[in-house]
Amino acid sequence: MRYYTIEVNGKERVAASADGRELFILSRFADMNDLIAQGGICEIPGDAPRTGEDVKILSPIPRPKQDVICLGINYAAHAVEADRFSSEAFGGERPYPIFFSKRVNYSQGPEAGIPSYRGLVDSLDYECELGVIIGRDARNVKREDVQDYIFGYTIVNDVSARNLQTRHKQWYFGKSLDGFTPMGPCIVSADAIAFPPALGISCLVNGETRQDSNTRNLIADIPEIISMLSEGMTLQAGTIIATGTPAGVGMGLTPPTFLNEGDVVECRIEGIGSLRNIVC
Amino acid sequence: MRYYTIEVNGKERVAASADGRELFILSRFADMNDLIAQGGICEIPGDAPRTGEDVKILSPIPRPKQDVICLGINYAAHAVEADRFSSEAFGGERPYPIFFSKRVNYSQGPEAGIPSYRGLVDSLDYECELGVIIGRDARNVKREDVQDYIFGYTIVNDVSARNLQTRHKQWYFGKSLDGFTPMGPCIVSADAIAFPPALGISCLVNGETRQDSNTRNLIADIPEIISMLSEGMTLQAGTIIATGTPAGVGMGLTPPTFLNEGDVVECRIEGIGSLRNIVC
Repeated sequence: MRYYTIEVNGKERVAASADGRELFILSRFADMNDLIAQGGICEIPGDAPRTGEDVKILSPIPRPKQDVICLGINYAAHAVEADRFSSEAFGGERPYPIFFSKRVNYSQGPEAGIPSYRGLVDSLDYECELGVIIGRDARNVKREDVQDYIFGYTIVNDVSARNLQTRHKQWYFGKSLDGFTPMGPCIVSADAIAFPPALGISCLVNGETRQDSNTRNLIADIPEIISMLSEGMTLQAGTIIATGTPAGVGMGLTPPTFLNEGDVVECRIEGIGSLRNIVC
Repeated sequence: MRYYTIEVNGKERVAASADGRELFILSRFADMNDLIAQGGICEIPGDAPRTGEDVKILSPIPRPKQDVICLGINYAAHAVEADRFSSEAFGGERPYPIFFSKRVNYSQGPEAGIPSYRGLVDSLDYECELGVIIGRDARNVKREDVQDYIFGYTIVNDVSARNLQTRHKQWYFGKSLDGFTPMGPCIVSADAIAFPPALGISCLVNGETRQDSNTRNLIADIPEIISMLSEGMTLQAGTIIATGTPAGVGMGLTPPTFLNEGDVVECRIEGIGSLRNIVC
C-alpha cells in the first residue's frame, strides 16, 4: 500500500493507492499520524472516493509529532567526502553510529520550494535519504524483531546549511531551518518492500546524477539503528528516522558545489518514487 | 503568576498560584500547551477551585510538543571543566553557541525518579539549567524584541549519559533517554522576573552543593539565543529552551563523580523554586 497526504479543496486528507496509480481518500483518518497509530489499512475500502486528477501531493507527514531522528555519515563513501570537506566537523573514528535530530515545523512535499536563505546560508546542500517510519512504540527492541515495528518507508531530503552545521559544532541548527525537510511523495508500507531494504537511491541536481547508491550500503543498518536507539529511548509510533545519505552531496564535490536559487533537486528511491523540489 | 501541571484524582490539570502558596485549578485549559497558546492568565478567576493539600505536582509540560532545544557549554567555568573531561568531545574554539536537542517523550516532575540505566550508562550526570518557554511563534526576532516572545521560565535538569553522549559524537542520544528531563516545579511567568534574568542557580547532590552560579553568567544570553535561533527556524509557542549548565557537573569533578542509584539531585533557581529527584 502507498499512503499519501494530499490537499483537496484546500483541506488536508489522507489517501492511499493499492496499484500506484489511482488514489482513494481515506476519510476515517484525521491525518497520517492517526492512520499510522491505527496500523494503516490492508485494502482500499469499497466506499473510498477516488480523487480527481487535480490533486496536490503534500509531504506524507506534514507536521511530524517529534523532531526527525537522523543518522550522520552512514555510507562509507560519504564518510570519505565529508572528511575531505571538513575533517574537524566530520572526521575521526566512529565505532558507533552518529545520531542527531532536526526540527521539522512543517515538512513540504514534492514540487514545493526549498528556501535558500540568502545572507544566512552560503552552502546549501541536499542529502537524499531513506526515511523509516515507526509503526508502534518501540522500546528495547532486539535486532531480529525490528521489522515488526516499521510502518513503512519514504524519501527524505535532509537539506543542510553546511556553514551553520559546522559553525555551531553540533549539527542541529544547520539542519533545522524552516523548509529544510522535503519528504515524500508517499509512505510505502513495510510489507511491500523486502527486509532489510536494498533499494537504489539517487539524487539528481538539474538532471545531473550526483548521488547513486543502494540502501544495502548503510553502515549501521536498520536493525542496528532501531535496536540501539530503542535501548532506553522509546521510539513512538510516527517517529521518522532518516538513515543517512550516500556520497555525492555538494560539499563532497571537487570543488564543493552548493545549491542556488532555481536549482532542481530530485531524490529517487527505487520502489518509493521521486521527490523533486526547486530551490527558491 | 506561577503555573503548574498537577495530578488530581488521577487526572492531569493545569493550575496557578498568584502568591506562591494556594493553588487553583484552571479548568478551561486542556493542558499547559493550551494555556501557553492562549497567553496565560492575568489573575486567578474568582470561580477557580482551590486544590486540596494532597496534590501531586508534575512537570509543567509533561509532553513537550517538540524536542527540547539545548545550549551546550554556555557558562565559562563549565567550558573549562568539560574540556578537561574530554577535549575531543567538548573542547575547541567556539565563536558561536552550540545548539542541540533532546527528545522528551515524557518529562517528569519533582520527586519522580531519574532512571540509572545500569548496564547501558556508566556515567550518569546532572545539569541544572534555566528553561525558557516561548509564548508565541518567534521568527526573525531582533535581540531587543526577544522579551516579548517569552512566556516564562522553569528549571530543567538536562540529565546526561556521558558515555553515550561522547561515543556517538553528536550529543543527541546520550541526552534523550526516557526520564532524562525532569522539569519544574512550575513555570514562572515572564512578567514576574526582571529581564534578562539574573538568578542564582545551584544544584545539590545528597545535600552537597555542586553547582552554584547565576544566570547572568550565560555566555550566549537569552536575547542572543532566541534571535539567532529564530533567524530561519520558527520557534513555536510552547518551545522549551534549556540555556546551558554552570560548572560543577559530575564529569567536571576531580576525579569525575557520577550519579548512582539512591542519589538525590536538587536543582534550584532563585525565584522559581526547587526540582528534587532521586536516581532509581
